[in-house]
This record gives sequence, structure tokens and C-alpha cells, in this order.
Amino acid sequence: MTALETLIAKVAAPDPGVALAAQSRLDRLTKPRGSLGRLEELALRVAVIVGHDRPRVERPVIFTLAADHGVVAEGVSAYPQAVTAQMVANFAAGGAGVNVLARHVGATVVVADLGVATDLGHPKVVARKIARGTASLATGAAMSRAEAEAAIEAGAGLVDEAAPDCIGTGEMGIGNTTAASALTSALTGADPGRVTGRGTGLDEPAWRRKVEVVRRALAVNRPDPRDPLGVLAALGGLEIAGLVGVILAGAARRLPVVLDGFIATAAALVAVRLCPPSREYLVASHRSAEPGHRVLLETLGLAPYLDLGLRLGEGTGAALGIGLLRAALACYTEMATFAEAGVAGRLPPEAGH
Amino acid sequence: MTALETLIAKVAAPDPGVALAAQSRLDRLTKPRGSLGRLEELALRVAVIVGHDRPRVERPVIFTLAADHGVVAEGVSAYPQAVTAQMVANFAAGGAGVNVLARHVGATVVVADLGVATDLGHPKVVARKIARGTASLATGAAMSRAEAEAAIEAGAGLVDEAAPDCIGTGEMGIGNTTAASALTSALTGADPGRVTGRGTGLDEPAWRRKVEVVRRALAVNRPDPRDPLGVLAALGGLEIAGLVGVILAGAARRLPVVLDGFIATAAALVAVRLCPPSREYLVASHRSAEPGHRVLLETLGLAPYLDLGLRLGEGTGAALGIGLLRAALACYTEMATFAEAGVAGRLPPEAGH
Repeated sequence: MTALETLIAKVAAPDPGVALAAQSRLDRLTKPRGSLGRLEELALRVAVIVGHDRPRVERPVIFTLAADHGVVAEGVSAYPQAVTAQMVANFAAGGAGVNVLARHVGATVVVADLGVATDLGHPKVVARKIARGTASLATGAAMSRAEAEAAIEAGAGLVDEAAPDCIGTGEMGIGNTTAASALTSALTGADPGRVTGRGTGLDEPAWRRKVEVVRRALAVNRPDPRDPLGVLAALGGLEIAGLVGVILAGAARRLPVVLDGFIATAAALVAVRLCPPSREYLVASHRSAEPGHRVLLETLGLAPYLDLGLRLGEGTGAALGIGLLRAALACYTEMATFAEAGVAGRLPPEAGH
Repeated sequence: MTALETLIAKVAAPDPGVALAAQSRLDRLTKPRGSLGRLEELALRVAVIVGHDRPRVERPVIFTLAADHGVVAEGVSAYPQAVTAQMVANFAAGGAGVNVLARHVGATVVVADLGVATDLGHPKVVARKIARGTASLATGAAMSRAEAEAAIEAGAGLVDEAAPDCIGTGEMGIGNTTAASALTSALTGADPGRVTGRGTGLDEPAWRRKVEVVRRALAVNRPDPRDPLGVLAALGGLEIAGLVGVILAGAARRLPVVLDGFIATAAALVAVRLCPPSREYLVASHRSAEPGHRVLLETLGLAPYLDLGLRLGEGTGAALGIGLLRAALACYTEMATFAEAGVAGRLPPEAGH
């Protein structure tokens, strides 16, 4: 077996039997049944994911993977390619949005270079460069299959090294909403005009050009949705492939995998097409302002918890999602039961209420 | 002037001029403009509320006010009246949902008895009992105007004693969704069938009875929406009146007032009718599952940040809202600027992008 096949074989669907014990605890807590709404649903899901009814999350790690994209030569981004490397330095210095929000929710950030076009050599950036950026997906395959597989393995290795108990996914790569749009279109069949957004802030003519680039990428590469690795290699990016590895490794370790926005969710759909049981480990943190994100969430059958118009990426939405997950587990773990607190339960129906 | 008139006179509309400086800072942070979505809007609002462009929130306090309601005799709740006092003891012991979520976001909880029907005498409960519960609003006024005013003053006094830099509102009172429904109907003109929900979990016949109780309350009391204090006295509760005081005192101190769900927002509408500029200090944390909450939010022109199907009250939604507010301020305060991080800005339009 290849390393990827071995990784996929490690992922098993969680045991839904844990849900009964977890629901029973939720219903004994001092609150009307179900009154914590989606926080209860989230606590229950995490219990099922980790496979026991007293889940704890104490070492959440957000994996923010960076790489460059040859497609920026087509003028699909409002920012120059150099910003990828500059933002990686910002992550390493702790000054970016994902750093601030990770600190806010008690998570750490692992920053890794999967394919930035320039040399970085920053001690706080994990060096896993597979290539100096991808080729342009508008004129051929962005990567070889071997490169995509190597990036997946590198992403999975980051999880093994960090040994987290909850995963957040994040990314940085100027041009990567174009790659995510192409992946979404290829894997779901949705039209490029429906899944391509304004990224970091394109005006109307630039947006039209971006849609045309995605159409050209599909015409040139003729991706086969039954071959998710081939689709990833043709249209993805090295950081996106790395995130596929992060997600599969998280699922193999039975961890909640808290997705960020559009790009991370595109990686998740690749992971689920490669390995369907991995879907059960995914938690959608938020609904991004990028239109393709909605299509991906519907395809994956995931309902996000937050809808705040975020479109920054980096793992910022995942950080907020981890905060909410920890809030849900805190309620589940720390709230008193009716018996512990000496609080009366519901009136019996015959009492006339 | 009465104490209430004095309190109202202290509330001035915030100076919108601060928004310019705050927006300028937001636009210099290392992210595409607006890409943190509603977190940016929230940070901007807090800057305007506190009146300077570097707002800090370090001592948030959630005021969880408790009282009983004579209307429970009509069979409008799935839980017995004794649960109010039992839950107050649970708050004091730190075992309720609001305690857990307040700890999670770094807020403290002030628990106060504004009108619980039984003696409490718990050292961690602030004793401000105005009466041993209200009379039934289905047969006459729930309170006298003097009692309503005294409860407002008591609530305002709690804020003065705690000296917070951000306020969350919470409540506990078996039967208080009936009072909030009646207040909502009286102040907005919406039909009782539209603003009355299932509270802690009523079945269909019990819900119909609750709607009829609200109709009777309106018919018996004939509340005049131009007299918000009279509406509050006739249909409210002592904890709701206390929250009106908390909200007005927060606005007088130029603090963000983070509303919880249906009952707290009903108190907010009373506060705004008494004192229109207080509206500018309100932050709607979440959209409750109670149908009347939507009507109140629309009337107040507030867009909630979270929609998680919560219907517990206590201040649980406010706690999550305070967590989000602190996340927004953390981004605003701690993120590096483009200049600080050496990150390039947008490409000029003439670059063809």
C-alpha cells in the first residue's frame, strides 16, 4: 500500500452508540431539554467523534499551511504573490488574525510551508516545501500526482508531530480561492460562475476574468470527479493537499476536525471523496462570504455554527469554531445535574401544565 | 426629578465621530478590508459606544436577576415555581449554564434576587427583593408603578456597585416568557399568537392556554404603549424591571450592553421606550428560539451575531456574545498593521488586477 492508502485505511466511522450516553447526560443537566440548542448538538457530536461520553479538548491545534499558486500570473488576486511569504512571517511573529483568535480560544497555531515560492527559513515555520509553488492550473496540471501525495503525507505528518486533541484547519496562499473554486466545480459539477467569489476583494471585471480562468482550468485539465487525487493534483494547491492530509490524519486519530472556510472545506471534500468515513469527523465552524463555500457545505451535509461574513481564511473561522466547541464541552462537563443541584424537573403532564 | 428621571437624563447618544478613527485602524490591519466581517462591525460599534478608538473589555459582568411571577398559577410553565429559587441556588453554587459560559469567556456573574417568592439568604445572592413575586398579569397589574420603579433603581444600583466595563444581561423566573410575550405584544402591537412561544417546553394545548393568558392580560390591563413604565408595571416582572435598570445604567456609563435572549430584549425595548438613546448601547448576542425575540430585534433594529437555537436564558447567550465581543476587540487591538508586519497592500487597479 502507498502511504496515502495506509492513511485512508486507518480511518473508521465512529461508533454512534456513544450518542445515547451523551444524550442522557445532556438531559440530566440543569436546563430544559435541548435549550442549549446547537451547543448540545456540538457536544454530542464531539462525544461520538472521540468515542466516549466525557470528551475533553485541552490541546487544540490550528494547522495553517501556506503555499503559492502559479495561477496568480493570470491576475486572479487583488494582492501580489509576495504577500504569501510576508503573511507567513506575520503568522510566525504572532501578528495575524489567526494568531490573535487562536490565543483568544486557547489554541496553538502550527505554521507550515508546503510550497511558498520564496525561501523562508523562519525557525517558527515548519519547513515542508514540496515545490516552489504550483504551476498555473489554467494551462495544465497544478501539480503532479506524486507532489499532491507528498503534500498529503506532509500534512498528516504535522498532525502526528503535534499530537493535538482537536484540529483546526487554516491556510494562506495568494490565488488559492481560484484553486478552491476549480476544485469545487470539478467535484460537485456546479458551474464556475456559481462557485467563484471575489476572494480578497476583486472588482467586477477581475471577477469575470477569474471565472474564465476557472472555466479554462476545467477545459484544459478535464478532471475526472471519480479520481479525487487526480482532481487535487490538477486544480489544487500544495497547502490544500497538505490540509487533505491534516484532515485524514485527524479522522484517523478520531479527533474533531474544525474546518475554516472555503479553501479548507474544498480540502475536506477531497478528503471525503478519497475516504468517505472521514466526513464524520468534520465540524463546519462558519459560513464564509465566498459563494462556493455554501455549495461545499451542502455537498458535505454540514451545517456551520457561525455566520459572520468572514472571508479571511488563515484558520480564523476555525479558531472561533474551536472556541464554540470548547464552550459546548464546558457546558456538557461542568454544568450541575438536576440531582446534584437539587432542582426540580418538569411538572408531570397530569398536573395540567 | 425622580431617580428614574435622573437615570434617564444621564444617557446621551454616543459620538459617532470615533467611528472614523476606528475604521481607519481596522483598514490598516493585516487582512483584506472587511474580511473579518461582523467582527469588524462589532469592534467598531464598541469603539463608538465607549467613545474612544482603543476600547478594552477586561471586567465584563453578567447580571442575572431573578424573580417570581404570579401568572404561573395559570399553568403557563412546564416547571414548578420552586425552580426559580432552586436555580438561584444553582447560580450561587456556580453550576448553571450561565456560570459555565461566563467562566469560559472570562466574565463574572452577579446574581440578584429582585423578587423571588421564597426567602433565599444565600451570601452569594445580592438581596434586592422588592416583593415576593408579582401578582398575576392575567387578572390585573403585575406590579405597582412604584414597585417597577424601585426594581429599575435596584438594577441600576447593581451596575454602580459592580463597576463593570461591559455588561451582559440575564434572568431567571419561572413564567417570565409569558410576561415577556405580553410586554412584546403591548409595546409592538404584534398579536399574542405571534410573539408567544413554548418557553421551557410546552406542548400544543399548554401553548394555546399561554396565548390566551397573554390575550387576557392585555384585555384586563389595557396597556398604553405611550406609557412604557405603566406597561412594564402591568405586564412585566421584577427581574425584567431590574434589567431595565441595568440597561439604562450601562448606557449612562457608556458601556456595551450585551443582551441575552427574549426576556432581556423585552427589557431592552422597555428601556429604549423610556430613553431612546439607550438603544445605541445595545448589542444583540444571539437570536433565541422564542418567536417573540425576532419581533423585538426587528423593532429595535438589532442584528444578532449568533443563531444557535438557544432558549435557556440566564445570560447564556449574553456570555457567548461577550466572548465574541472580546474576540473582535482582540483582533482590533492585537493584530499587526501592514506597516508593522511588512506586508504589501493591494495591487493598484492599473496593474490589471
